[in-house]
Amino acid sequence: MAKELKELTSREENYSQWYNDLVVKADLAENSAVRGCMVIKPYGYAIWEKIQRKLDDMFKETGHVNAYFPLLIPKSFLSREADHVEGFAKECAVVTHYRLKNDPNGAGVVVDPAARLEEELIVRPTSETIIWNTYKGWIHSYRDLPILCNQWANVMRWEMRTRLFLRTAEFLWQEGHTAHATREEAVEEAVKMLNVYADFSEKYMAVPVVKGVKSANERFAGAVETYCIEAMMQDGKALQAGTSHFLGQNFAKAFDVQFVNKENKMEYVWATSWGVSTRLMGALIMAHSDNNGLVLPPELAPIQVVIIPIYKNQEQLDAISEKVQPILAELKKMGISVKYDNADNKKPGWKFSEYELKGVPVRLAIGARDLENGTVELMRRDTLTKETLPLEGIAQHIQDLLEQIQQNIFEKARNFRDSVTRDVADYDTFKEEIEKGGFLRCYWDGTPEDEDRIKEETKATIRCILLHQADTEGKCMLTGRPTKQLVLFARSY
Amino acid sequence: MAKELKELTSREENYSQWYNDLVVKADLAENSAVRGCMVIKPYGYAIWEKIQRKLDDMFKETGHVNAYFPLLIPKSFLSREADHVEGFAKECAVVTHYRLKNDPNGAGVVVDPAARLEEELIVRPTSETIIWNTYKGWIHSYRDLPILCNQWANVMRWEMRTRLFLRTAEFLWQEGHTAHATREEAVEEAVKMLNVYADFSEKYMAVPVVKGVKSANERFAGAVETYCIEAMMQDGKALQAGTSHFLGQNFAKAFDVQFVNKENKMEYVWATSWGVSTRLMGALIMAHSDNNGLVLPPELAPIQVVIIPIYKNQEQLDAISEKVQPILAELKKMGISVKYDNADNKKPGWKFSEYELKGVPVRLAIGARDLENGTVELMRRDTLTKETLPLEGIAQHIQDLLEQIQQNIFEKARNFRDSVTRDVADYDTFKEEIEKGGFLRCYWDGTPEDEDRIKEETKATIRCILLHQADTEGKCMLTGRPTKQLVLFARSY
Repeated sequence: MAKELKELTSREENYSQWYNDLVVKADLAENSAVRGCMVIKPYGYAIWEKIQRKLDDMFKETGHVNAYFPLLIPKSFLSREADHVEGFAKECAVVTHYRLKNDPNGAGVVVDPAARLEEELIVRPTSETIIWNTYKGWIHSYRDLPILCNQWANVMRWEMRTRLFLRTAEFLWQEGHTAHATREEAVEEAVKMLNVYADFSEKYMAVPVVKGVKSANERFAGAVETYCIEAMMQDGKALQAGTSHFLGQNFAKAFDVQFVNKENKMEYVWATSWGVSTRLMGALIMAHSDNNGLVLPPELAPIQVVIIPIYKNQEQLDAISEKVQPILAELKKMGISVKYDNADNKKPGWKFSEYELKGVPVRLAIGARDLENGTVELMRRDTLTKETLPLEGIAQHIQDLLEQIQQNIFEKARNFRDSVTRDVADYDTFKEEIEKGGFLRCYWDGTPEDEDRIKEETKATIRCILLHQADTEGKCMLTGRPTKQLVLFARSY
Repeated sequence: MAKELKELTSREENYSQWYNDLVVKADLAENSAVRGCMVIKPYGYAIWEKIQRKLDDMFKETGHVNAYFPLLIPKSFLSREADHVEGFAKECAVVTHYRLKNDPNGAGVVVDPAARLEEELIVRPTSETIIWNTYKGWIHSYRDLPILCNQWANVMRWEMRTRLFLRTAEFLWQEGHTAHATREEAVEEAVKMLNVYADFSEKYMAVPVVKGVKSANERFAGAVETYCIEAMMQDGKALQAGTSHFLGQNFAKAFDVQFVNKENKMEYVWATSWGVSTRLMGALIMAHSDNNGLVLPPELAPIQVVIIPIYKNQEQLDAISEKVQPILAELKKMGISVKYDNADNKKPGWKFSEYELKGVPVRLAIGARDLENGTVELMRRDTLTKETLPLEGIAQHIQDLLEQIQQNIFEKARNFRDSVTRDVADYDTFKEEIEKGGFLRCYWDGTPEDEDRIKEETKATIRCILLHQADTEGKCMLTGRPTKQLVLFARSY
């Protein structure tokens, strides 16, 4: 039965079902009793912890500190910034009461109508409002700036259609909120954090990304400019992996946060915010995994190496274990996380499938013949190739191999992304090409209404205006007007 | 003005005001716009992060893994366990709606009455119910046990009277939830985690604790037995610093979680839960600090050493900086966090006060004369004593000193605790002695009603039944009945 439980729908058969199967069967997450809210299971959470740790280090290296702001936001705060309320007030969890009481009819507990809040509280969908209301008390002079805060927190958006990690009512994320004395410094911060996200994605997640700016249609509610990184999934759909917003003085004006500048004049504070969420887990899974299960980049794998003994009797197991001990010790000393699975209630074949499903990058199997020959069988999860190697020097070999695997996974994803990125010059071709998936790179000079029309007709949106523009001119693929602006269109998650 | 802002109320004048002043002025936390919810400021959060990191390491060393469960709990879940609902359903934040809409009268946004939830959701006050509902799907056989999960999360309890860190509507905590095949194993787990908390408190927080068991009156709602650690604050009031609950089969029965045991019979699962929260920050502050500000144990100090140059001109500063660089490098290499504060817009005296307020364990000051003599002035925050030392070998000296300071802070707190712990044999003496604060150790054979009466008459409660009982018999201080049971009474936070 265990075997059948592990079987995944194949990607070719049904990509969406493959994803859901994989998330559940690899013990990453599952749906909970609360609509749209997931349970992140220990194996999934271990990956998220690695993501958190690396990102947190990168934030601290760039001068940021962590803090914590309230979960609940007074309803009126959301209305202060006109665009923000349009974007976030609509689908959110509203706390209206602060007490339950025993049901007079004996049917459990009911809301106590006497305990109605004067002003309703919203479970934070994002924290700009409560944070800028707080910053008002922290900022008086340019000497108080910059403020470079980040928070790791849970947020809620009442999504109607949810998918594990990709779109859930509650999700975990980090949100950076910074305050600056000048526009230039704030823009520089927003771009800096975009680069941190891009570096993290490529270096640790092995997911190549395109850096860009959102069009007005796709901009964060309340931002002047939204920078983003866009990744390409194996099914040809794009996924927004992180955003960094230059907020101008919008929130400072909404919450009246002014400071005395160096010229001794009152000025509104400049702001950024930036965030990535457990959605990254979805990107990680969909970018690399295959029909056998997860493929994890070694940098984020909770278990990097698994060693499985193959034996007929206790004596053989003891002999294998004796050989394995120094390898375990050596790998651990190198900072490599390794598991020796000598559990005797599971067959080696079952273990092989299990660790493939879980995406463990390197598997060693060692049997009686290996003992005689002083060898070990090594399998790479990314290529599923096996080779027999001498035990001598195996730890060093693994250390090098993990780097190679990390690099190979990245290159494979990049090659795929590049192979599905095409230049398209006119809308007829666009409509044909978009059916094949991938990124379509186009010159663009259309209006927000044009974007809406294209979305309606093709389900594709501008994922980003490319941050690194060529200095060439072309013709807008829709209007034919001459323009230098290059954008990427795609269907997306 | 900055100087005055830093002035604290003294402990002798008003202990409670001293605490509040200190939390705010040392930049640990502040009240937010949301009633009862605090903002944890970066310096306070940096201490919390150190607490988290150490505890998390200890949980993992004892075989636990992290996971994440939903913020919101269906109202009906709370009613499943009879005691639990009495304890937790009453004062909690209730989500009744999932949408806002524009006010037809143009006054911002209002709750959309059409978006009323069929069943209200509760912001988790603790997660036993949602977790045991989840475990039902994870546990079928004894082979699935034990489950050893922990989660780091925010929780809400609608407290009427709140105090920063000590009692807030929202707080951060960790909650471990474990599932076991036998009663013995679950009890062992609950005791193991109590010991982890006690070790953490004494080794890292330098706060000595008494281990005990709660009386029925003070037991967690839904537990069979609540183990606790109790600490003594400088004002003679006790503070419960952590609890670990043996839950029996209560939640397994409430959520119908059964497993096939080794004898192939169906049995309900045995459970524990255990938690510590940002309340530990309150214990840390109140156990050690003085009228100059925080006193932080080196193990949890975000900055362990600060170096302050004293100079008249740039040339002197440059000469000092040159001498300081190798010390900085050496300390960092030792894993000691050090800050060189060469900011030129603050006077040394201001800096001295600031770092005293912030509780930095070791301060070095280095001036022109020190340069000539090859010396440095060192101040210990715990004793406020200064000495002039040779620069040569200073890093090694500091490393040793930090250990001494850690030890000294602990011993000071333990000596104080011991000095306010007295044996009391009868209720008349008890009533006199309780006015002086501290722990009163008594033989006890009273009833829950007796406890209520004592609480009413003296504001004192049984903090715990001592885990390590002497095998002597005495007379209950209230009833005079012979008993072997020793308890600690105190007034408490």
